[in-house]
Formats: sequence, C-alpha cells, structure tokens
Amino acid sequence: MSAALAARLAEAIDPARLEARQRGLAGHGGQAAGGVARQALSAAELRARRWLAQAFGQRPGYRLGIDAAANVYVRRLGQDAQAEPVMTGSHADTQPLGGWLDGAFGIVAGLEVFDALDSLSIATRRPLEVVMWTNEEGSRFAPGLMGSVSYTDPRRLAGFLEVADADGVSFERARDQAVADFADHAAAAGWNWMARRLGEPVHAYIEAHIEQGPVLEAQGLQVGCVSAIQGVRWYRVTIAGRSAHAGTTPLASRDDAQAKAVRMAHAVLEHARAAGDERLRVTIGRWDCSPGSINTIADRVVFTVDARHPEAHALDALRAVMDAALPEGGRIDVLQDKPTVHFAPELVALAASACQALDLPHRRMLSGAFHDAMPMAGFCPTAMLFAPSVAGVSHHPAEDTAIADLAACTRALAWCLLQLAEPCSS
Amino acid sequence: MSAALAARLAEAIDPARLEARQRGLAGHGGQAAGGVARQALSAAELRARRWLAQAFGQRPGYRLGIDAAANVYVRRLGQDAQAEPVMTGSHADTQPLGGWLDGAFGIVAGLEVFDALDSLSIATRRPLEVVMWTNEEGSRFAPGLMGSVSYTDPRRLAGFLEVADADGVSFERARDQAVADFADHAAAAGWNWMARRLGEPVHAYIEAHIEQGPVLEAQGLQVGCVSAIQGVRWYRVTIAGRSAHAGTTPLASRDDAQAKAVRMAHAVLEHARAAGDERLRVTIGRWDCSPGSINTIADRVVFTVDARHPEAHALDALRAVMDAALPEGGRIDVLQDKPTVHFAPELVALAASACQALDLPHRRMLSGAFHDAMPMAGFCPTAMLFAPSVAGVSHHPAEDTAIADLAACTRALAWCLLQLAEPCSS
Repeated sequence: MSAALAARLAEAIDPARLEARQRGLAGHGGQAAGGVARQALSAAELRARRWLAQAFGQRPGYRLGIDAAANVYVRRLGQDAQAEPVMTGSHADTQPLGGWLDGAFGIVAGLEVFDALDSLSIATRRPLEVVMWTNEEGSRFAPGLMGSVSYTDPRRLAGFLEVADADGVSFERARDQAVADFADHAAAAGWNWMARRLGEPVHAYIEAHIEQGPVLEAQGLQVGCVSAIQGVRWYRVTIAGRSAHAGTTPLASRDDAQAKAVRMAHAVLEHARAAGDERLRVTIGRWDCSPGSINTIADRVVFTVDARHPEAHALDALRAVMDAALPEGGRIDVLQDKPTVHFAPELVALAASACQALDLPHRRMLSGAFHDAMPMAGFCPTAMLFAPSVAGVSHHPAEDTAIADLAACTRALAWCLLQLAEPCSS
Repeated sequence: MSAALAARLAEAIDPARLEARQRGLAGHGGQAAGGVARQALSAAELRARRWLAQAFGQRPGYRLGIDAAANVYVRRLGQDAQAEPVMTGSHADTQPLGGWLDGAFGIVAGLEVFDALDSLSIATRRPLEVVMWTNEEGSRFAPGLMGSVSYTDPRRLAGFLEVADADGVSFERARDQAVADFADHAAAAGWNWMARRLGEPVHAYIEAHIEQGPVLEAQGLQVGCVSAIQGVRWYRVTIAGRSAHAGTTPLASRDDAQAKAVRMAHAVLEHARAAGDERLRVTIGRWDCSPGSINTIADRVVFTVDARHPEAHALDALRAVMDAALPEGGRIDVLQDKPTVHFAPELVALAASACQALDLPHRRMLSGAFHDAMPMAGFCPTAMLFAPSVAGVSHHPAEDTAIADLAACTRALAWCLLQLAEPCSS
C-alpha cells in the first residue's frame, strides 16, 4: 500500500514554490490594471507555455511534446515504457480579460507534483503527464474545449482548423505557428523531445481547477471532489409583438412584446425561486428588444435562458413552465442541450480518500462550469478536484484563491496521481 | 352667422384634389420599397416644401415667406391688413422612414382649405396662414418641435442652431441653406413674398393631424376634437447586480440584476394592467443588460418607463409602485416630466360644433403624441383635429387613412378656420 508514500508526497508540496510558479505564469499576459489577457494561441499564451515547459526541458526523466491540436505535454517517464500515462493538467488560455488562476492553476498544480516527486526521488511504474490543453475558453476561436475534444475524438480537429478568430486568422494557422514555435524553442534549447499524437490511450485523468463558484468558500472547505459536470440547456426565447406609439395606443389595444416577455420571464424565474432546489440554476443572461426606443412599443424581444440541473426531470419541468408561459407570438429555440457528464466513481472515491487521508476539509460536488475533463470523461476514467474561489469570482481580475487552499488541492492531486501511477520505490 | 357659409366651404373640400396633393407630396422622399424618408431640412424636404408653396407663389391674394427657424408660410391675405392671422399647418419632415401622412396631412389639409376658399371666392377679414414647421420629429436634429418652439419663444432658437446631425452638419447651416434655397426659388419664380418673423402674434391655431393611435378607427369615428396633449414622464431604471457564472453560482448566492429587473418590471406592468384605466399608458421601450452573455449573471440592467396619464395623481401612483418595487442596487432617474397641455376650451368647442354642423362622427379625445400644437398652446388659443389612423399605425410605411376620413377632417378644419377668420362675403 502506497498511502504512506502518498502522504509524504503531499507534505512535499511546497506552497511557496507553487505560488512562485503561479505568479510567474501570471506575468505572461498580466495587465497593469489587473487581470490576465492570454487568449488561446496568442503570443502571450505561447510564451506562457514555453515558460512552463522550460523547467523540465532538460531535466532527466522528462520528455516534452506537442500534438496536432497544439496541446503541450510535459511527461515524467515511468519505469514501464509501455504503460499508459496518468494525466493531469488544464489550460493556460484565458477569456479576453481573465484572472490568474482559471485553468492555469491545474497546470501549475501538476508541475508542482512533479517537483515534489523529484524532491523525494519517487519513481512510478506509469508515466505521468501534465497537459496544457489548447483553447479551452473558446473566446478567440469558438467553440471552446478544442484541444481536449480533438484529443478524445481526433476526427473533430479538421472542423476546428477552419474556424477563424475576429481578425480572420484561422485556428489552423494559429495552430501551425504554435507547433512550430514550441518545436523551434525545444530544438534551440536542447529539450528532451517526444512525439505525441492525439488520441493516445490514457490510464486516468484528474484535473485540478478553481471552483468558479461560491460553495466551497461558503462552507469553509478546501477541496471539492467533483463527481460530475452538470448538464446545461440553453434556450433562446423570441417574442413578437406589434410596434406602436407609446402615447397613442391604449394598453388594451397593444401587442407589447416587452410586456409579454417580462411576464414569461417572471414566471420562469419565480418557478426557479419557488423550487427551492440548490441544484437548479436558471439565468437570463441576454435580453434584446427592438426597436429599443423609449416611446415605442416593442415589436420583438429575444432573451436567453441558461438552465442547469443534474437531473433531466428538473430541466423538463422548467421547460414545461416555459411552454406554459410562452405568449402568443412566442417561440423557443434550443441552442444547446448537454446532458450531465458523470465522472468515474472509483476516481471520485479516490479523490475523497485523498482528502480523508490528508485531513483536508472537503465535499463531493458538481461542476457548474464546463472543463476539459468533460470530453476526457468519455475517453478514460476522469475526475476533478476543485479549490475554493474567493467570493465565487472567476473570469475576472478579482479571481483569487488563498495559497493555502491551492496547496491543499495540489496535495490531494499529488496523493491521487501517485496512487494511479503506482510508485516503484519509497 | 357664418355657419351656412362654413358648411358650403366644407362641401367645397375636394377629396380628389386633396388626395392628389397628398400623393404628390409623398413623391418627395418616397421610397421604392414603401414609406417616405424626408428628414428635417434634407434635400427631399426642401423640395417638398417648395412644391407645396409653388401653387400659391403667384396666385393673387397670397404671400409666401420663411422665418429664422426656416418655418415656411403660405398666407392668404385678409381684408384687414392689421388683423392677426388664423394659423393652421403642421410639419413636412418625417422619421428616417415614415409614412405619407404624419405631419404632411396637416399642411395639405390647410392648402386644400385655401383651394376651397378660392373656389367659392370667399374673402376673410383676418389673414389665414398655412405654416410648415421645421423639424417636428427631432430625428435628424434633437430635440423635435424646433420650429414651433422657436416661433413661440424665439430666444430658444440660438440653442437649437448649435445642434448637429449625425454627419456633423449644424442646424444653423441646414437652416441657412433652407432659407437661401426657399428665397432663391421665390425670387427666380417671381413668387409674391412677405417678410415673416418668429413670434408674430397669432389669433388662433388649429392643427389637423392623423391620430397615430387606434381609438377613432376602433370606434368608427371620422374626427377627433383634441382637448389636450397628454403629459409624459420618462424614467430610466438602473439596476445593479453582481456578475457571476451561470453554472457555478446557486440561486441563493446570486445578485442577479436581470432577475431583479424582471421582478420590478413585472410589478409595474401588472399595476398598469390592474388599474383598468384606458388613459393610463405604461411602456417599457428599452432594455439593456450587461454583460449580455448567455451563461453570465447580469451585473447591470437599464430599462426605460414611458408613463402617460392626463392626471398627475395617476402618474404619482405609478411612481409609488416603481419606488416600492425598486430592488436594492436600483436607481430611478427622471429623463423627462412634461405635464399635460390643455387646449383652448372655446376652440375645442368650436371643433365639436363643426363636426356637429357637418354631421361628422366624432369624439373629444386626448393626444398621446406630441405635436407643434403643444408649444403653440402656450402662445395663442390652440386646438387640434385628428383623422383616424388605420390600425393605429404611424411612423411606418404602413401608415394610412381613408381619403374619405382625411376629407372629413379637412371639412371640419375648413369650418373652424372660416369662423375664426371671419368671412366678409357670401
């Protein structure tokens, strides 16, 4: 049993070293006014990924690589060269202006585990890999999760390559530049190299990430053992009315799209409120009305509904409320309907065991946001570990987590990775 | 008593001649796809006003003029050169894309009365004037009613002259071009000219206009005798919340600006609906939310409320509902608060007498829209006559009124103008 070694490894996680790497990474794309601007495959992100890799480029027992989706790998070799790797990691790209932790923390945590393993000279039977997924955010190239989706289903890459950013630069061109940039630096710096292809089998994948929500902080917990990524349904509600003069048209003669939309939205939100179910989340994020003039009755309102619940029946019930409240002249379009993705129960249990063994206050929970672990869950046994987010804020310069909490999450990650990679010595 | 002569004059109103002038006018700025684009002091409007004037430029007993606000006048001389004129008219400018009647009809109706007077060789003691007010709509140069406001309070003109349109052209420059254009054409065509200044006393002002609402049509009436222009209060409601991830943030942890705004708007609209008062009009015309992303909780919503009722207490009650429903993080700004403008009771009674004498189905009513008659009401005895609007539509290519209804309204106008101008012969 390797639990004792795993506990020693967890103790070897160094909060100062972790913080230094995390802050150093934030310097790539960091903004003077706060926050980090490091969109997918931008110059700042390429620099950031090279900077993360370089510490391992010439370290004995490591190999670096990049695949056809420009996902970057830092592999810690195992004693069994044929064994499938245990993988961790996340993404280094940000929203146009994001925080210093989202995604980046999952990479930094994995590399910190490598440093801790090296500090204890622990060898493993299986290789360990830290992956830096390409374009998780989807803000420069839509959709997001391009790197992890391509990894788990390489046929999807061809479609992604045609996608262009707002300046007309294709993902293919950005990918080619990123691959050449990384390989050129590797050659120039004499990094130990490996060929790495999309779709190579993976033994297990565990991703550390900030929660991006307020639950762990509110409950005073340090680690979330994530059992599933909650599904989501996106609806677009379009309500037609008849434009008319606000002063000359009695209420009884109106077909006021705005009034109809407000009534329907109110019914939907009241249903959600009355349900009293912590897991039900209903958000009206967009609301556009036309013609949008103070003294003209609206002839068209379009609003969106983002509905989430781990169980389909709750989302079905919400949809029934929407259908019942839909006024004449209204239409509901489904923009997205992603079912809940469940993680591997044995990995979720392993994560909980890590927290118990390390005495870290934790809970099982759902992820309300999407992550690279979502496509990975259909590819290999997968789970996630969450660190608390201060005030639940993410995708914002104010995004933050206490270093002690980042370290706690990294300790749980180290414990799990070592168990999965099978230590060869102690 | 001149009632018999007034009835003869009303009979002399020629629907075919009226329609021909109205359709000819629509050719200036008429769009191939329907509707009329004739913004204030545009080339199309200058052509339209010249075209309307030219029929009277050399007709004996008429004088043409233009004032410092580029308001154009067609004066039918009276036998008493010192008497203050009786004025009618309206505006020839349109919204960026409007219909063929709004404003234009009031000018065409006045000129049709002149043709009818001439056909019967009726002379009056007082002069009669048809005025074409400048920039009623306010869509090219804001605010609207510039011509009539300048007429009734000439000190206001200086401020208007500095206003620029979207292309940076000042109202002053457009005004100068319009005055020069009109005067040059008058000189070239040998029109009988008069000097005309802002603020010259007016005996009475009656403006014909389309209703721009559905009331007359719904009740099968041909003429509205307008007793007042209903006041309006414009509010801007700003509601702040806290942006957060739609998937990770439980409802109980949210400060959702959109949900708060929907709840408040619903309360306001339900109050209006429950009031059951035909005169109360509440419109939410604009609704903007930020950041406007499907999966992000809104941190800010701004919506407007256009509230109208002839009595202040009803508007005060609505405001109290708004205050009570205003959520934490909310603010209400008053953008405009115009009290109801009452017309001269004796003129409203005269208009009703005309309809009775001519057996025209009519009612007293309020105007829900603003008109040049609003500033005029503070300057001289003023009233308005409405013709029904098909389906209540205006400011739209579909704007329409049956020719028989336009003629009926013009007959009532003729009856009133003749009474006010005091016929000298029969």
